[in-house]
Amino acid sequence: MKLGIGDDAALVEVARGHQAILTTDLSIEGVHFLPRLHPPRAVGHRALARALSDIAAMGGTPRFALVSLAISRRTSQAWLKNFYAGLLSLAARLGVTLIGGDTAVVPGGISVDVVGVGEVRKALRRSGARPGDQIFVSGKLGLSALGLRLLRSGRVGKTASEKEALFAHLYPQPRCALGRYLSERRLASACIDLSDGLSTDLAHLCAASGVGARIRAGRIPLADTPGGSRRMDSLQTALSGGEDYELLFTVPRGKVAGIPRRHRGVTLHRIGEITRTQKVVLLQTNGRAIPLVPAGHDHFRKI
Amino acid sequence: MKLGIGDDAALVEVARGHQAILTTDLSIEGVHFLPRLHPPRAVGHRALARALSDIAAMGGTPRFALVSLAISRRTSQAWLKNFYAGLLSLAARLGVTLIGGDTAVVPGGISVDVVGVGEVRKALRRSGARPGDQIFVSGKLGLSALGLRLLRSGRVGKTASEKEALFAHLYPQPRCALGRYLSERRLASACIDLSDGLSTDLAHLCAASGVGARIRAGRIPLADTPGGSRRMDSLQTALSGGEDYELLFTVPRGKVAGIPRRHRGVTLHRIGEITRTQKVVLLQTNGRAIPLVPAGHDHFRKI
Repeated sequence: MKLGIGDDAALVEVARGHQAILTTDLSIEGVHFLPRLHPPRAVGHRALARALSDIAAMGGTPRFALVSLAISRRTSQAWLKNFYAGLLSLAARLGVTLIGGDTAVVPGGISVDVVGVGEVRKALRRSGARPGDQIFVSGKLGLSALGLRLLRSGRVGKTASEKEALFAHLYPQPRCALGRYLSERRLASACIDLSDGLSTDLAHLCAASGVGARIRAGRIPLADTPGGSRRMDSLQTALSGGEDYELLFTVPRGKVAGIPRRHRGVTLHRIGEITRTQKVVLLQTNGRAIPLVPAGHDHFRKI
Repeated sequence: MKLGIGDDAALVEVARGHQAILTTDLSIEGVHFLPRLHPPRAVGHRALARALSDIAAMGGTPRFALVSLAISRRTSQAWLKNFYAGLLSLAARLGVTLIGGDTAVVPGGISVDVVGVGEVRKALRRSGARPGDQIFVSGKLGLSALGLRLLRSGRVGKTASEKEALFAHLYPQPRCALGRYLSERRLASACIDLSDGLSTDLAHLCAASGVGARIRAGRIPLADTPGGSRRMDSLQTALSGGEDYELLFTVPRGKVAGIPRRHRGVTLHRIGEITRTQKVVLLQTNGRAIPLVPAGHDHFRKI
């Protein structure tokens, strides 16, 4: 994928045999971020991360981004500078070039729309999971929700696990290298990114594939809860906490040997398997199976 | 350009030898539209028209759009229905498919970000104008500004010319067929769409090409001013009124014969020529030349 020289719009050349991936994600003051909690650097980082995570979930390589930014008359130069510093630093690290956008000054709060442009040879989709496929997730689940809880409580993050949770919330890392690895080696039969929480996103994947799933509570990689909260609380956060931006993917039994325990520093956990029944169940550590109801993530409205 | 099947994001296949054109345009309540003046159907139409006009200016064929919509809690179902009706009706007429987007409910007013995706074999650019090239514009200039003035005065548009102006403001027609004609036949050396008014956009084109221009006031196609305003007023509106979304393009002398008087119902006027001096001058009807100062269009703030 190459950048042409554009002026009224951006021009992009897609390599032969590849498809372009296009995604657009809104980040809105009061909905996706709160000025008193989220430093501008994190707002910029998170706005781009959301778009790049969609590209990672399709196994694509992110290349370009366009940023439409509506700022209020009260927005300071310092806020803007740090917003772009956060966005551009993530872009540089993942090889993404900013190629355009639009700006406006608005009567209301700040809103950002990021368009992510990537390319892929053979896209990973949500709909390819088949009964017997093994279910994997990357990273630890619920970390971002935990980080948000710390931010709201005014805790700055003293212990290593608190710092990890805060960082995961403010500076989530889209799993682009992992998505590319899975698609290039044809290892995954289906893939989705965890933006709304495991219970919701697993339901999306199962619905798209016309299958069910059985996952084991004891296998789900949980965040360390600070202050000694109970394991049950961590599990609930992992199932319903949003914005982890980890990958949830399925692998045919014959290809499981190709999945490493760790890919570029990110741990991969096998948490269950795809079933024929179209039901999604959680096998508790006491051996009882209960239905896993999607507990949709709703940003700040419910928290 | 073909549409793949996407889920986390949209997948697009670009035809061999073509480039993808990507553009993003914000339409914000209180900045780009006013709820008491602009019916939702027009808001949807205009939001898409802005993006498609950028693609037309590059000589491209629009194919896809992604719409990110932030609505307020007060936005009614009827408003939404009519917004999408306006947007989708323009999309259908120009062969554009809606392939994705994002939505959110926000504390402030409505904002829309439209991503336009087009394709082109050889893009028209702003920077190709050379001394001696002839300058053309499509349509009549200043119509949209006139339509806005009528809307603000509460006039519903009784005469044919009033109706024409209102229609031009509420439902501007991006000149995609004309842009494509110019690029496919390699007729234009440079092109830009008139979103900010002739004086501003001609200055953009000249700056990008490193040239100047001399245009003749008597040749500029003006809107009929209702209520018998003077010609001078019409000329001022044509020079500084925004949102006409007509094309301004330059044609090497040897290719002028290839430009018809009318293309698919849209009149084309030769209004001047490119000069070596890097100055932009207006030749008045009395024969005097005056510098043409860009009188930037500022949506509703200045009107």
